[in-house]
Amino acid sequence: MSDCIFCKIIEGSIPSNKVYEDEHVLAFMDVAPLTKGHTLLIPKQHVKDLFEMPEDVARNLYAAAPKIANAIKKAFNPVGMNTVNNNGAFAGQTVFHYHLHFIPRYDESDGLKVRWEAKKDEFTPEQLKTIAEEIKANLNE
Amino acid sequence: MSDCIFCKIIEGSIPSNKVYEDEHVLAFMDVAPLTKGHTLLIPKQHVKDLFEMPEDVARNLYAAAPKIANAIKKAFNPVGMNTVNNNGAFAGQTVFHYHLHFIPRYDESDGLKVRWEAKKDEFTPEQLKTIAEEIKANLNE
Repeated sequence: MSDCIFCKIIEGSIPSNKVYEDEHVLAFMDVAPLTKGHTLLIPKQHVKDLFEMPEDVARNLYAAAPKIANAIKKAFNPVGMNTVNNNGAFAGQTVFHYHLHFIPRYDESDGLKVRWEAKKDEFTPEQLKTIAEEIKANLNE
Repeated sequence: MSDCIFCKIIEGSIPSNKVYEDEHVLAFMDVAPLTKGHTLLIPKQHVKDLFEMPEDVARNLYAAAPKIANAIKKAFNPVGMNTVNNNGAFAGQTVFHYHLHFIPRYDESDGLKVRWEAKKDEFTPEQLKTIAEEIKANLNE
């Protein structure tokens, strides 16, 4: 897409620090890293988000994920790693070309703070069953 | 793996609210949901984390991701969605069978709070180039 910054990175008209490239994907350093080694993996095909991603694009994208995760791990020996994909502005998406963040974790001074607040009391087993049925009913439509 | 709770869910010896299943993967409701529709996608093959995931397992896993994301979206019309995968206890992993969280987002009362603190000042363009070289040097070893 002509006005997409990530498409321009793929074409090479905007420079980037590439770490991996194959026929289907490109991985490069996030220019605003949360931690050392913060890397982005994108499909070469312009896809806005996970919702719009064709199955074959998804397949070829994630095939590269373990090798990128392992390369970051070998390079910097983090104590953990989060992979995060944001879809929609409310969820934190700022570039509307799907990207998967690889965020190696080191210590409490990390740039990624995640507060995981389980709402167990709000969802009874019965409600979870109903919710699952609703999702199932919307699959493969 | 005999003592793995997710392997038991796959076998059916522990119940779950399944939303999708194929030869390679299973998706089911997180029992401690952060938001309505919080779903987990796991490979049927026991793999501890992304680091240990074979390429073909990764390929088959993510092939199912767009359809699950879209089913949740159709069911509950969230304003966004995060997919998150935690590797290692420090990164928030609590069950050591790889799982990908689908967390639909609705509003500020969500159970997921992410503070994204870019460390731009700590990483100069020159440093990012060096970091990329170090990751590249550790690829495909």
